[in-house]
Amino acid sequence: MITNEPRIRESLANQGLLQTLAAGLHTLDAGRVTLFMPITPASSQQHGFVHAGATFALGDSASGYAAMTVMPPDAEVMTVEMKINLIAPADGIRLWAHGEVVKPGRRLIITRCTVEVERADGTRRDVALMQGTMIPV
Amino acid sequence: MITNEPRIRESLANQGLLQTLAAGLHTLDAGRVTLFMPITPASSQQHGFVHAGATFALGDSASGYAAMTVMPPDAEVMTVEMKINLIAPADGIRLWAHGEVVKPGRRLIITRCTVEVERADGTRRDVALMQGTMIPV
Amino acid sequence: MITNEPRIRESLANQGLLQTLAAGLHTLDAGRVTLFMPITPASSQQHGFVHAGATFALGDSASGYAAMTVMPPDAEVMTVEMKINLIAPADGIRLWAHGEVVKPGRRLIITRCTVEVERADGTRRDVALMQGTMIPV
Amino acid sequence: MITNEPRIRESLANQGLLQTLAAGLHTLDAGRVTLFMPITPASSQQHGFVHAGATFALGDSASGYAAMTVMPPDAEVMTVEMKINLIAPADGIRLWAHGEVVKPGRRLIITRCTVEVERADGTRRDVALMQGTMIPV
Repeated sequence: MITNEPRIRESLANQGLLQTLAAGLHTLDAGRVTLFMPITPASSQQHGFVHAGATFALGDSASGYAAMTVMPPDAEVMTVEMKINLIAPADGIRLWAHGEVVKPGRRLIITRCTVEVERADGTRRDVALMQGTMIPV
Repeated sequence: MITNEPRIRESLANQGLLQTLAAGLHTLDAGRVTLFMPITPASSQQHGFVHAGATFALGDSASGYAAMTVMPPDAEVMTVEMKINLIAPADGIRLWAHGEVVKPGRRLIITRCTVEVERADGTRRDVALMQGTMIPV
Repeated sequence: MITNEPRIRESLANQGLLQTLAAGLHTLDAGRVTLFMPITPASSQQHGFVHAGATFALGDSASGYAAMTVMPPDAEVMTVEMKINLIAPADGIRLWAHGEVVKPGRRLIITRCTVEVERADGTRRDVALMQGTMIPV
Repeated sequence: MITNEPRIRESLANQGLLQTLAAGLHTLDAGRVTLFMPITPASSQQHGFVHAGATFALGDSASGYAAMTVMPPDAEVMTVEMKINLIAPADGIRLWAHGEVVKPGRRLIITRCTVEVERADGTRRDVALMQGTMIPV
C-alpha cells in the first residue's frame, strides 16, 4: 500500500471543490493516481461540454496526489505552475484524469497528466494534456 | 458598449461551472474583462484556500471573455492552452480575475490574466498569473 | 518514406541557429522526429552545462519537424507556444530531442518532446520535457 | 547599484550560447533586466526570421538575470520552467528582451518577459511573451 493513501483519501474528502465536482479516487500507485468525475451541468460550459476549469481541477488534483505518493507520509504539496493543452471538447458522461510523477525531487516534483472523456457507449478519448510543477509544503 | 456584451452576459449565465462557483461580471471593456467570485467551502481545497482549479476556472473565463470583446459579434472562443503560475495562497473572501488580450488575431488570440484575492479588510494581493491562447469557434 | 522528409532535411540545413548548434537529424517517422546536437562551449551556460536556450531550440525543432511529418507535403509550421520543464542539468557530450505529435489537426498540432543528455560513458538521462502547439503556415 | 551587477556581467561573458548569439546587457535595475542581440543568419530559421530557440534563449536569460537582481550577492538561479507564446515573426535587425520579477521568493522566483524586434527603421513590436519560474542554486 502507498503510505500516503489514507492522507490522500482524507484530502479528497476535504477538498470543497472536488466534492462540488463529485470527484472520486479510482486507482493509486507509486507515482500514479487516477481520479474521475461525472459530467453534469454543474461542471459544464455553455454548450454542455466540461468547462476547462473543471478539466483543469481534476487533472491538477490527480497530479498533486501522484506527487504525494512519492513523498514522506506527513508531506503535502502545492501546485507551483501548471500548463494545460485542451485537445478536444469533453462531451460525454465521465472525465478521467491520469496523473503521474515524471521527476520526483526533494525541492520540486514534475508531473504530467492526461485527461480523458468517457462517452455513453464506453469509448474514451483524450481531451487534455497537462505538465506542471509541485512543491512540498 | 462592447458589441459582444450581451453574448458574454448570456454565456456567463449559461456556464454551469461558473454558476456553481457564483462567478459574476464586474467590468467589460475592449480587450479587458474582470470577473469575481466569492470564496466559499465549495471552491476551496483542504486548508480553506481557494482550490487551484477554481482560480484557474475564473481566470480562464476572464481571459476567454476578454478575447470575445475583440471578436465579431457572432464569434465564440475556446481555450487552446493556458499556463498558470500560482504565486500565493488564496485566503480571503473574494477572488478577482483581470483578463486582457495581449495579441488579437484572426486565427489565434493571446491573453494574460492576473488573479487577486480580496481579504476581509479590503486589501488585495496577486495569487495567480496566467498566459494562454484562445481560438475562435 | 515520410513525404516531407526532403523538406525537413532541407529546412534543417537552412536553419541558421540549428547549423550554429550543429544539430542533426537522427530518425524521422510519422509523428516522431529525433534530433541531436553535440554539447560544446558554444551551446553552454557559465557552468559548462547546456544553456536552457539550446535545449529549448533542439526540442522545439524536433517538435516542429514531428508536426511536419503529419502534414501535407507543401506545409510548414510555426510554434504558437511551448512550455519547457527543465528537470536536470544537461552535463554530457550530446543532447537528444525526441519530438512527437500527440494530437494532429488541421488548424493546430499539439506536440510533446523529451530531451535527454548522453554522457561520455554512453548513459543517458532526461533533462527536459516540453509540451506545445504548432500552427500550419 | 544592483549588488549582483558584477556577477551578472561576468555570467553573461561566460555563457557560451549568449556569446554565440552576441547578446549584450542594456539595462539592469532591481527586478528588471533588458538584454539585446543582433539578428544574424546564425540566430535565424529558414525564412530569415529569428529562430524561436534564440528568442527563448534571450528571454530566458533576461528573466534569470532579473531574478538575480533580487537575490543575495552569492546566489545564482536556474530555470525551473518557462512558457513562451510567440505572437509575431521576428524579422528585423535586433531583438530586445525585457525580463522582470513578478514575485520574488526565497524558494522560487516568478518572472515575466516581453521580447521585441527592432526593425531597420527603428520601430519595434512585441514578438514573444514569456512566464516562468526560477530557483536559487
